[in-house]
Amino acid sequence: MMKAGDDEGAAGGRLGFLKQQDSDAKEGKTLSKLSSTPAKGDWTKASCPCCESKQVEPLVLVKLGGKVGPETKRWLIRLIGAQQKDGGAGLLAHPGEDAQSSIIVVSAPRCTLLRATEELGLCKTYKTGEMEAFSYNDRDNFRNSNNMEAFLTLAEREYIVKYELEGLRAQKDLRIPGLPDKYTLHNRDNIWQKLCSAGVIVDMFPLHNSEKLKQLKEAWYLGNQLSQPLDSVNEYFGNSVAFYFSFLDFYTWSLLPPAILGLSIAYFSGEVQKEVVESVSKSQSPEIQVDSGLMVSGHMIQAVFSMLWSTVVMELWKRRSATLSYRWGTLQLAERFAEPRPSFHGKLGVNPVTGRVELLFSEWQRDLRMLLVSVPGVGLFLGLVVVGMMCFYWGEAQVKQLHKDWDSYLSQTFLYIPSVLHIVYTNMLGNVYRNVAQSLTEFENHREESAFENHLTAKVLVFTFFNNFAVLFHIAFFKQDVSLLRKRLASLLIVTQLVNQVTEVVIPFLVDRFISAPRRNEKEDDPQEDKFRNQRSLPPFPGLFAEYIELLVQFGYLSLFSCVFPLTAVLLLLNNVTEIRSDAYKICKLFRKPFYPPVSNMGVWQIAFEILSFASVVSNCWLLLLSPHIQVWGQENGLSGGNLLLMAVIVEHVLFLVKFIIAVVIPDEPYWIRKKREHMEYASMWALRQMTLEARES
Amino acid sequence: MMKAGDDEGAAGGRLGFLKQQDSDAKEGKTLSKLSSTPAKGDWTKASCPCCESKQVEPLVLVKLGGKVGPETKRWLIRLIGAQQKDGGAGLLAHPGEDAQSSIIVVSAPRCTLLRATEELGLCKTYKTGEMEAFSYNDRDNFRNSNNMEAFLTLAEREYIVKYELEGLRAQKDLRIPGLPDKYTLHNRDNIWQKLCSAGVIVDMFPLHNSEKLKQLKEAWYLGNQLSQPLDSVNEYFGNSVAFYFSFLDFYTWSLLPPAILGLSIAYFSGEVQKEVVESVSKSQSPEIQVDSGLMVSGHMIQAVFSMLWSTVVMELWKRRSATLSYRWGTLQLAERFAEPRPSFHGKLGVNPVTGRVELLFSEWQRDLRMLLVSVPGVGLFLGLVVVGMMCFYWGEAQVKQLHKDWDSYLSQTFLYIPSVLHIVYTNMLGNVYRNVAQSLTEFENHREESAFENHLTAKVLVFTFFNNFAVLFHIAFFKQDVSLLRKRLASLLIVTQLVNQVTEVVIPFLVDRFISAPRRNEKEDDPQEDKFRNQRSLPPFPGLFAEYIELLVQFGYLSLFSCVFPLTAVLLLLNNVTEIRSDAYKICKLFRKPFYPPVSNMGVWQIAFEILSFASVVSNCWLLLLSPHIQVWGQENGLSGGNLLLMAVIVEHVLFLVKFIIAVVIPDEPYWIRKKREHMEYASMWALRQMTLEARES
Repeated sequence: MMKAGDDEGAAGGRLGFLKQQDSDAKEGKTLSKLSSTPAKGDWTKASCPCCESKQVEPLVLVKLGGKVGPETKRWLIRLIGAQQKDGGAGLLAHPGEDAQSSIIVVSAPRCTLLRATEELGLCKTYKTGEMEAFSYNDRDNFRNSNNMEAFLTLAEREYIVKYELEGLRAQKDLRIPGLPDKYTLHNRDNIWQKLCSAGVIVDMFPLHNSEKLKQLKEAWYLGNQLSQPLDSVNEYFGNSVAFYFSFLDFYTWSLLPPAILGLSIAYFSGEVQKEVVESVSKSQSPEIQVDSGLMVSGHMIQAVFSMLWSTVVMELWKRRSATLSYRWGTLQLAERFAEPRPSFHGKLGVNPVTGRVELLFSEWQRDLRMLLVSVPGVGLFLGLVVVGMMCFYWGEAQVKQLHKDWDSYLSQTFLYIPSVLHIVYTNMLGNVYRNVAQSLTEFENHREESAFENHLTAKVLVFTFFNNFAVLFHIAFFKQDVSLLRKRLASLLIVTQLVNQVTEVVIPFLVDRFISAPRRNEKEDDPQEDKFRNQRSLPPFPGLFAEYIELLVQFGYLSLFSCVFPLTAVLLLLNNVTEIRSDAYKICKLFRKPFYPPVSNMGVWQIAFEILSFASVVSNCWLLLLSPHIQVWGQENGLSGGNLLLMAVIVEHVLFLVKFIIAVVIPDEPYWIRKKREHMEYASMWALRQMTLEARES
Repeated sequence: MMKAGDDEGAAGGRLGFLKQQDSDAKEGKTLSKLSSTPAKGDWTKASCPCCESKQVEPLVLVKLGGKVGPETKRWLIRLIGAQQKDGGAGLLAHPGEDAQSSIIVVSAPRCTLLRATEELGLCKTYKTGEMEAFSYNDRDNFRNSNNMEAFLTLAEREYIVKYELEGLRAQKDLRIPGLPDKYTLHNRDNIWQKLCSAGVIVDMFPLHNSEKLKQLKEAWYLGNQLSQPLDSVNEYFGNSVAFYFSFLDFYTWSLLPPAILGLSIAYFSGEVQKEVVESVSKSQSPEIQVDSGLMVSGHMIQAVFSMLWSTVVMELWKRRSATLSYRWGTLQLAERFAEPRPSFHGKLGVNPVTGRVELLFSEWQRDLRMLLVSVPGVGLFLGLVVVGMMCFYWGEAQVKQLHKDWDSYLSQTFLYIPSVLHIVYTNMLGNVYRNVAQSLTEFENHREESAFENHLTAKVLVFTFFNNFAVLFHIAFFKQDVSLLRKRLASLLIVTQLVNQVTEVVIPFLVDRFISAPRRNEKEDDPQEDKFRNQRSLPPFPGLFAEYIELLVQFGYLSLFSCVFPLTAVLLLLNNVTEIRSDAYKICKLFRKPFYPPVSNMGVWQIAFEILSFASVVSNCWLLLLSPHIQVWGQENGLSGGNLLLMAVIVEHVLFLVKFIIAVVIPDEPYWIRKKREHMEYASMWALRQMTLEARES
């Protein structure tokens, strides 16, 4: 198996793929409009002269089904190569080494790339050096607009190919050659979806560029760098991945203050080890009362600090995110003005915003579906989590009772049954839920890809988070047992990190070293086509959800319960430093390259972190109130439980207010970005006023 | 004295003012550029032929100082009449009946109005019937663009005159004829401000149109209408006033549900009268415990309902506000792209947004000033309110002690001294604060008029609100005396309303009937000039602050403390129904017509109402907790004070969450407005793309 990121023979390979072959003059018969037939084994010709170039960069590989006949493949290649006004994708296609091979390699000519850049609303560097929304008419004034490899990032070029292919819609009723009649396309049907459902297209993924990948790896994780090459990550993997790694980076650095504070409190109080030992052994040592004054203040400083810290971090991240978005040209994405996502359905009508004829789906219908179907659906599954937890506690109590009554070897093994059953139940529920969430979101029928992603993420996120924290919340708020909570939290933190390190670093390393590496050497002089095909043997990238949820759960441990276990930030900091490298290693070497659309921020994750940051005030105040130190302190100062509670509530409200004020006072984008954005708005307004007469009369 | 709103001889008067007089051919000597000299006693000529019209509508009256020489007046008239490119205002001026009279009447020609409409970013009806941002180049495609009286509202026309006059800046160093050298204008000095500070201009106000005013009054408050003619109010007084009355209207109607609920709870429990009597007589009758179950539920229903009600009302108002803003064409105001406000100062530089050379003032400097000067300043005054309140309580205790010790007639009068002193102190503090707030906001140096207004309003608002509620909060949260609170609230509600009705309805009516009306008859056939001049004898309109704060304080009584006095909503409803009429009467008859700029919403008041709505959750939960019914209920059910408090906290958090979700789920603008807005954005984006090449190369 040939690895995508191998270092040998890459540059030559790409050129080799471009060598001319004798053209086979078989003419296409079935598709009237798509008249220019490609030469077998060569790239289709670009339709406009400005796009012709000697060197075509293979961007995306389309894998066809095994039973696809040559006439279907020829038709597909012609469709991909035909101009957009004729209903084609306006791209370049290469049939692979021979016409029978079941792959099509796709690239994109300059004009298609530039038009799509405008359509997506990407900003690019203008001749003045500022970022401006790209305009096809004004292309000559943008820097590098003649050199696509410098103008667009690799990820953007590849995404545009996907965007064009998946956006293909039939312009009239059409039979696909070589397929049964039931797959006949009707007007405005999405062609790509039809081909996928017909089994013609099995897979589609972007191709690695082994040279660039090598450079990226060296700059990213092979050395001892402290900072990540975020611009290169953005160039190679796209915005979404770059935003994830930027956030990981930012978040890891911002863990320094709480880690230092936690360490110094631990050092000065000298109490932490004792506490951990105590909590694990569940014995309340009588010494606590001796220096309770100091511990109270240490605990409180830690808690108050972490509550305010989380808001400041999230606000600063928003500013950083806006800066990155400006730098990467995604500040003015025009997704809502573009075509709807491929699987969007509805009735044909005139879009009131753009005035184009396209599929429309009424907003209230979507709202109704969310309210009546999605919300109860998600609620049901959250209920099932609670039921599971309750059954687990019930079962545990039963089994303990049984063990007490019987006290045999057999009954001792019974003790593990509830845990095992609960884990199995939780996992099954999680898997079922993921499918349900997908269907629910599909049913909601969002127009934009980003809306779909955000709604799907939100659904899975709520469930996963609830699943992770239900037990901890139960301990904190119902059992009100701080020492049990501390024990659980410590073990969760340590176990989670161990499991993560093993699954994310050790296993991949072993796989790479002992399974992939020996195979790699076998195929040094394979044809380029096989190298592309081999990239398919890697598993598809599972998406950033798992990575983000890991961070969110971490952040939850830290912000919700930090006051019971002050060294959380230290452990997380250590974990994240290795996490950066292991995640980078994973995405570069262990998976197929993923497609990611341009995005301007982290989307729904941003909101999830902010909600958590506010929820942390409630839980921390509550935990402080429960903590034995505070209770002792209250007794010493003659405060009743009610008065202590009142104090906690007042502190909580003040902290809420302070956090809210911090969030409002720190602007969400830096001053200079705001000015740039206002300048863009002003330019649009001005253009509209100048333009409107001519444009409307024409 | 001639009233603005009188009904006699109005239509004829306006025409009379326009009659031709012999032109006096004295040539201007001092101002080189402003070459066209006006004929004495006639309107200056419009500079472009399309603006010439037989009939000029007098819009604004400028009152000059008594000592202003005729050469200064002539220079000023020429300045007003000169074209904008020559540094003039591009308006029309009329010197009054003779050259010595100390007024100038100003009007505006069509082109100046249209250009300003574009500059302000007003939307007008396009030929398609939709509202579109007005563009001067495209003027012929907008409906009524040849008839200014239909195209712009009277308030807009008058505001544009003010906008142009106050925006006048010297294009080079310039001596003003007839004034000492210290008033010499330097480049980019604001001319109007200089003239005001030199005493040349004493006053400026928009003129009433007595015909329209008569129609408005008939439709507004002379009949028995249930609804207000909001569009006519907008036409005559401008957006700000129309928004106030719309909100008053909306808010009054939305008081119906809580009023009905309050009445029915009062009816079914039959407890309210008893309660009021009890609370006023301060005796806790033992019967309360008999049907505490019913009362608890009544109280709670009332409280929970009013908490959720306030959020729903504010969200629905936002939608209504967006609809009104669309209808009145202020959805896309371009204030931030226009010239800075007249008293804005800074260094000359290139505005990074518009690319124009203008005065700039760095944002961080403004932030610093707010943080280091304004915030401590406001805090100091709030502190003084608290100090005053504490002194009052201390003084009251002292005086009571004295009265107890002496028990004489003299000592009884002493009992009133603390209250009187406190009222005097509070009033003085309020007056000082108003000036301080003005200076602080001026010092902050805001670029836009609306930003200035909002910051000023926010400052005064916080203080006034604090001043109004400090005592109630003290009773509720420190004294924790629900019956005293109820007593205070009932007396405040009744006293406030009586005072309001007297000051707002009875006194104005008496003034109008016995002082204004007799004078009105004296001057039936006065010259038009005197009628204009007489409008100046009315006091200037004091602004909407007092009206809004009255509503806000009402809303505060209702939402913060409604659960202690369930009939609040009923009283407020009755009050507001008369309030609508008395406010309308006031603005139409008792004051000079005010200038108001176009606005797109209520500004900072919106936020104040929303904050209050959230604060109400805290106070209501707290008051419910304190209420004797709940305490009794808790005792009956064996709940300790701590457990009750915990319950209240949980209920509070749940209500916060529900309110937050309601606020997020209800969209801030109706669907169709969002589509219109997106359409406008799309059109701008599209225009920019089409335009950018030509525009930048030219």
